[in-house]
Amino acid sequence: MRMTDLIAKKRNGGTLSADEIRFFVNGYTDGSIPDYQASALTMAIYFRGMGPAETAALTRAMADSGERLVLPDMGLRADKHSTGGVGDKTTLIVAPIVAACGVHVAKMSGRGLGHTGGTTDKLSAIPGLRTDLSVQEIASIVQNCGLCVAGSTQELAPADKKLYALRDVTATVDSIPLIAASIMSKKIAAGAQNLVLDVKTGSGAFMKRSADAKALAKAMVDIGTHEGLRVTALITNMDAPLGYAIGNTLEVIEAVQTLQGIGPQDLTELCLQLAAQMLQLCGKGTQEECLEQAQNALFSGLALERFIWMVSAQGGDSSVITDTSQFCKSRFFRSVKARADGYIRRIDAEKCGVAAMLLGAGRQTKEDEIDPAAGIVLDVKPGSAIRSGDRIATLFAEREDAFADAVAVLGDAFEVSDTPPKPIPMVIDRVSNV
Amino acid sequence: MRMTDLIAKKRNGGTLSADEIRFFVNGYTDGSIPDYQASALTMAIYFRGMGPAETAALTRAMADSGERLVLPDMGLRADKHSTGGVGDKTTLIVAPIVAACGVHVAKMSGRGLGHTGGTTDKLSAIPGLRTDLSVQEIASIVQNCGLCVAGSTQELAPADKKLYALRDVTATVDSIPLIAASIMSKKIAAGAQNLVLDVKTGSGAFMKRSADAKALAKAMVDIGTHEGLRVTALITNMDAPLGYAIGNTLEVIEAVQTLQGIGPQDLTELCLQLAAQMLQLCGKGTQEECLEQAQNALFSGLALERFIWMVSAQGGDSSVITDTSQFCKSRFFRSVKARADGYIRRIDAEKCGVAAMLLGAGRQTKEDEIDPAAGIVLDVKPGSAIRSGDRIATLFAEREDAFADAVAVLGDAFEVSDTPPKPIPMVIDRVSNV
Repeated sequence: MRMTDLIAKKRNGGTLSADEIRFFVNGYTDGSIPDYQASALTMAIYFRGMGPAETAALTRAMADSGERLVLPDMGLRADKHSTGGVGDKTTLIVAPIVAACGVHVAKMSGRGLGHTGGTTDKLSAIPGLRTDLSVQEIASIVQNCGLCVAGSTQELAPADKKLYALRDVTATVDSIPLIAASIMSKKIAAGAQNLVLDVKTGSGAFMKRSADAKALAKAMVDIGTHEGLRVTALITNMDAPLGYAIGNTLEVIEAVQTLQGIGPQDLTELCLQLAAQMLQLCGKGTQEECLEQAQNALFSGLALERFIWMVSAQGGDSSVITDTSQFCKSRFFRSVKARADGYIRRIDAEKCGVAAMLLGAGRQTKEDEIDPAAGIVLDVKPGSAIRSGDRIATLFAEREDAFADAVAVLGDAFEVSDTPPKPIPMVIDRVSNV
Repeated sequence: MRMTDLIAKKRNGGTLSADEIRFFVNGYTDGSIPDYQASALTMAIYFRGMGPAETAALTRAMADSGERLVLPDMGLRADKHSTGGVGDKTTLIVAPIVAACGVHVAKMSGRGLGHTGGTTDKLSAIPGLRTDLSVQEIASIVQNCGLCVAGSTQELAPADKKLYALRDVTATVDSIPLIAASIMSKKIAAGAQNLVLDVKTGSGAFMKRSADAKALAKAMVDIGTHEGLRVTALITNMDAPLGYAIGNTLEVIEAVQTLQGIGPQDLTELCLQLAAQMLQLCGKGTQEECLEQAQNALFSGLALERFIWMVSAQGGDSSVITDTSQFCKSRFFRSVKARADGYIRRIDAEKCGVAAMLLGAGRQTKEDEIDPAAGIVLDVKPGSAIRSGDRIATLFAEREDAFADAVAVLGDAFEVSDTPPKPIPMVIDRVSNV
C-alpha cells in the first residue's frame, strides 16, 4: 500500500477501505507517513468528504492508536460530551443528576484552551480537589458516589492529537467527518457505551449554522451506530453564553446554585434535557419519564448531595460548596455599563470567552497558568431591557492591568436594539440511534 | 502574512494575490514554510484551480526563486519545449531547420527519467559530444552555428524542483495551473522570449484527453501573455511513439535520416510544423510562408549541415552523422512477432517507453546509467496491415537478461483489429497569443 495512492483515491472521490484508513492512521502515528502526505489527504477529505463507513473506520483506527481506557464493570453507565461552549458548566450539574437517578457517570474531561473552558479547570477551583486519578481511584469513587470527573489517566487516541495539531496549521479543521472522528475516537477510547452529545450552534460555537451542527451530530451518531454505541445528540443554542458566569470559581458557584434549584433558566433547562437523554439511553423510561426523574433529582437536593460526595471523594473541601461565600475572591473588579437604552439583542459568546481568557480565566497557550477566581458575571441575557448606564457585566481579575483589553473585547460583545429579539429555544434539534 | 490563512483562502475558493503567492514560494524555497503546509495548499489548488493572473504570479515567483540564465544578445531567437513523449527526437531536427532559416536556437534540455527520454541523453550518444557547456560556450556556438543544445548551466527555478518533488508524493501532480507554472517557470528562468510548446495528448502522453491538453496549452499561453512572452502551443498526437526508433543512438540515427529528407512521415510532419511556428513567432512570415521556409531548409540539406556544425562545435565526432553505420551497436537483439492477422490498431507509447527503459535506454532512478545503443525499432505504425508471425519490432540491449521483461511489456503494447483504425492527425489544435 502506498500513501500517495490513497491520497489520489480520495482526491478522485473514491472511498477508502478500512484497511487503507488503518494503514494511514498507524503510519501517521508511528511517523512512517510524513506530515506532508497527511495534510494532503486531510485537504482531499475536506473537499470530498467521507461516507459513514469511512468515518467510522477512521474513528476506530484513531481510537486504537493508543491504549483504550478500561474501567471495571460498574453497571449502568452513561457519558456526555459537549463540542465546547462559553460558560458551559453542564457536566458539574448533569453528572450529579444522572448519578442521583441510579446511572453511573465516570467522565474523562480535558483542560480548556482558547475561549472555551475545560471541566477539570473548573473543578480545580475547589480547594484540594484532584482530577489526576488512577483507574482504580476512579472506579472506587464511582462505586461510592455514582460519579467521578477526572482528567485522562493516559493519552487517549494519540493519532487524533497529532492529526488535530496538523489540521490546525493546514486549514483543514472544519471538515465534518474529521471533527466527528476526532471527538468520537476519544470517547470510544475512553470506553463510552451510552453517550449524549451536546452539539453547540450559534455565534459562540464552532458550528455557526444549525444545519452544520446537525450534520456533525448525524455524523457522530452514525459512528456510534457503526461502532455499537448508543448515541443521542442534542443540537443546542450557543448564541449567548450559558448561564451568567464565565470563569472557573464563578462557574462552580453557578453550578452549585443550579443544583440548589435556583440557577439560571437556560442552564437549568439544558442540564435537565441532557440528563434526561442520558437516562433514556440507559433504559430508564420514556423521554417524559426520564425528564421527570431528572427534575426530581435536581429539585429534591439529591443531585447536590451527590456532587458534595464527589467533591469530598476527590479530595476537595466540600465546605466551599455548602457555603460558596468561602471561595477565594479576585482582588480587583470592573463593571461594563450599557451605552444605550433598549433591549439586549445579542451577547457574542466567543467575545465573552476571549475576555474571560484575557482576565486569566483561560489559557492562550497550553503552558498558561489559570487564575481560578478570574472571570465575568453577566447581568443580562438576550431580551433583557436595559437603560444607558445600567451595569450589564462585572469583570474579576487578580491584576489591574488585565482589564483594559478584556473590557474592550467584552464591550463589543453586546448588541442593543429597539425591539427585543425573537427567543431561540435552548434545544434546537435531536438526533439519536436509539 | 500567515500561511494557514493563505491555505484557507484558496480552500474557500478565493484568489491569492501576487504578494501572497510570492510569500509562499519564497518561504517554501527557504524552508520557513514546511512541506505539510505546501502540500495542503497544492491540494486546495488542485480542487479550486487558479485564475490566469494567479498562475502567472506563481510562475514568476518560481522563475525568480533562483538566478535567471542570461545569455548575451544573439538577435532573433526562438525556444521550444515538449511536454514529453516517447521517441520524441524533434529538437534534433527542429533546431537545425530553424537555425538554417536564420533564427537562433539556444536550447536548454534536461535528462530523461522514467519512460520518456531526454534530449541531452540522445545527444550524448554521439561520441565526444558535450552538453555541459558554460554560458560563454553556448553563446559562441550559437554565434557560429546558429544553434546549440546544452544541459542547464545552473539550477533554474529551484522552487519548482522542490515543489514538484512534493507534488509527486502527495497526488497533486495533475493540476493544470501547477503543471503550466512548472513548465513556464523554467522556460522563463532560461530566458525564453519566443516559445513554441509541443503539448502531447493521447495514450503515451501525460494528458490522455485532448481537452485537458488544450486547457494546459491555454494556461501556458496565458502565462506568456502575462509575462510578455510570445507563445504558440501545438496540441499533438502521442497515441503511438513518434517515428519508429526509441533509444538514444537509434533516435539520433532516425533524426539524421529525417534531416536527410527520408525520415518517418509523422516525425517529419511534426518537425516542420514546430519549426514553422517558431519562425512565425519570430516574424519570418505567414504560417504558409514559414512552413515553406522550413521545408526548403530540410529538403535542401541545409538543416543537416547545421546539425553537423553543431555536433562538431560541441566536441562531437561528426563522422558518425555522415555515416551512421559507425555508431556502436548493441551486442544482443530480439524480435517481437505479430500474434494475429489484421491491422495494428494502437501502439501504446507508454509501454514502448517502459520497455526501452528496461532495455537500458532510460533511467528508472536518477542515478541509473544509460546504455546509448539500447532501445527499440518498430516496424509498424497504427494502420499497418500485418500477418501473424510478422516481425513488428526489434529490441536491442547489452545484456541478454534485459529482454525477458522488456519483451513482455512491449508485446502488450500492440493492439490488433480486423479493420484499420481511423487516422488521427499529428497536429490536433493550436493556441497562440500572437
